[in-house]
This record gives sequence, C-alpha cells and structure tokens, in this order.
Amino acid sequence: MNFLEERILKDGIVKQGNVLKVDSFLNHQMDIELMDMIGKEFYRRFKDGGVTKVLTIEASGIGIACSVAREFGVPMIFAKKAKSINLDGEMYVAEVESFTHQNKNNVIVSKKFLSPTDRVLIIDDFLANGCALQGLISIAESSGATVVGLGIAIEKGFQIGGKIIRNLGYHLESLAIIESMDAENGTVQFKQSALV
Amino acid sequence: MNFLEERILKDGIVKQGNVLKVDSFLNHQMDIELMDMIGKEFYRRFKDGGVTKVLTIEASGIGIACSVAREFGVPMIFAKKAKSINLDGEMYVAEVESFTHQNKNNVIVSKKFLSPTDRVLIIDDFLANGCALQGLISIAESSGATVVGLGIAIEKGFQIGGKIIRNLGYHLESLAIIESMDAENGTVQFKQSALV
Repeated sequence: MNFLEERILKDGIVKQGNVLKVDSFLNHQMDIELMDMIGKEFYRRFKDGGVTKVLTIEASGIGIACSVAREFGVPMIFAKKAKSINLDGEMYVAEVESFTHQNKNNVIVSKKFLSPTDRVLIIDDFLANGCALQGLISIAESSGATVVGLGIAIEKGFQIGGKIIRNLGYHLESLAIIESMDAENGTVQFKQSALV
Repeated sequence: MNFLEERILKDGIVKQGNVLKVDSFLNHQMDIELMDMIGKEFYRRFKDGGVTKVLTIEASGIGIACSVAREFGVPMIFAKKAKSINLDGEMYVAEVESFTHQNKNNVIVSKKFLSPTDRVLIIDDFLANGCALQGLISIAESSGATVVGLGIAIEKGFQIGGKIIRNLGYHLESLAIIESMDAENGTVQFKQSALV
C-alpha cells in the first residue's frame, strides 16, 4: 500500500452515494507535505516525458499541480471554469460536467500559454467519469501540444473515466484506485494495480 | 522595487477599467518559483505570529497559499465558493462579492478545520474592494480563531479594500501596492510603502 492509500484509509470518510471525503488533507484543508509527496511521485512516473507544462483545472487540482510543477521546474496552468472579465483574448474552450457539483461548465485556457512545442502533463485530484480530464485533453490537443500523460491522486475505479482515458491510449497514472467503498462499514478497497 | 513589483512591470498588462492582467505568472499560468518567493516573503513578515493555519479562497489564491503554508509547516485551507454535495455537515459561511466576476458567492469553510486555538494567516492574490478578505476574516473569527494577519500579493491601492482592512486594525501586508495604472501607456505606479 502506498502513502496515499494509507492516508485515505486513515483520514478518508466514506459517505452514501459513492462519495469519498478527503477534505481534511486533499481538497479543502490541504496537507502540503502530502502534496509534495504526490508531486515527487508523479515526477518519478513521468520524468522521462520531457514535460514543459503542468495543466490542471480549478480549484482542488491546483495545490497538487503546483507541487508537481515544482518537481519538473515548469509552469503550472489551471483551466478556469467560467469566463471572467480578466480572461479576454483568444482561448481554448471545452465543456465539462462535474460529478461533484452536478453541473456543466465551460473550461477555458488562454491560447497564450499552450503551443505545439509544449509537452503537457495533466494533473487532477479525482477521476470519476473522466469529463474534466477529457476537457483538459481536448484543450491541450487543440493547441497542438502533446499530452505526455495524466496523473490523478484518487481514481474511482468503479466508474468509467479511467477506462475511457486508457482506451484512448493515454498514459494515465492514478496513485490510489478505489475498487469499492462501503459507507455502512466505512471501508475502502483499492485495486492492486495502483500499488507500484 | 521588490521582486513582485519588478515582475509586474515586466509581464503585467494594464487594461481599460483598472484591470491588471498578471495571468502569465500569477493567476492562470503560475510561475512556481515566484510563488515560493512570495511564500518566503510572507514567512519573513509573519513568522513571529505563531501561525497554525493558512486560509485562502478558491481559486487563484491556492497556489500562493500552498507556498506560504509550506514555509510555516502548517495546513492550508481554501474557502469554497459554492455548496458542493461533498461539503456537508456544519460550516462557516460568508457572502462575498467578486470584483473580477461581478457576482456574489457564498463562501464556505468546514467547521472541522478551524478552532479557537488556531492562529490564522489569510492569503490572497489580489485585494481590491476587500470583500473576499472580509469574508475570510468573518469565517476565521466565527470559529473563535485569531487572525494573525493578511498577506496579499497585489493590492489595488486606489480602491477602498486596503484602507478598510487596515482601519479595522488588522496587520495587512501587500507585496505590491498599485497607486495608479494607465492603460493607454501601459504604465503602473507603485506606492512607496510596499518597498520593504
């Protein structure tokens, strides 16, 4: 079992409806030491990819993506969920449906920050149905950049997202893949393949 | 002139309507080295405050707040802008108006993460009318925690927020205080008091 799986067992809380709350250390209150361990682990897994940019989506991916970008020594870009008056000019847009918030957003990245010579590592905290990741892939590829891979902290292995992304041929690494959760007993089962 | 003021002059873009775009290094694409320099500078300015938690608001404050929290060796909490199905249970709420997005949001922090023994350093990327900071102050104080101070990357000195916060007696430190901007010439004037 790796450090993230151990932490999920220790501090994660399983709720009805396949909800895993990791808000005490990952996506509301953030344990910076853990973020940095995740950053180092993704560096280890993608270090030969010639990564030039780390791309994530606001808000809870930002902390992890900062730690990853620090390891690679490259800038981090976060896709924004709504058009702001500060984000004028040309931009790449993708429509993304949120499992957590049960709504749809246009996700935007300014064209200034991605180009055909970029090699992009996409980072996020959760992978469930894969909509957010597909939006980020679409944005990266619209720019002509190469998607080196995708690094996810927690994948819900019983949902379709991981399978879709892998079937498309992308190099997807999830640090913890949840096979099943039981809200009544508060238990979490991980998939063995995450134990690298 | 400090490192952030220099970077604003080098890469910031002044737009009509007192908009300063710093999206190439601070709040869309993020220069992680710069985030870490900001983190170290806020540590220097607040290191005697006994800080136990760093508090910010999603999304663009998160990167800076992570770097600050790393320096202090404490957790970072980001206030969320909308109620999500994952954020159940008791929470502190404040209403915040956004200058950038021209809308109002309820801002939420779970009660689990702030307590009367906490000493909170509030961090954000921009200070304009001060609504976001007042919301974060309100949330921190609702918990009984002590607000050690507030650290801002860029303060629009010609707007009312900084004055309001300082008049309330809070220790507010802004790394760059903009006195005026001129969209036609693309110039930015800083207030001398930011040059510590």
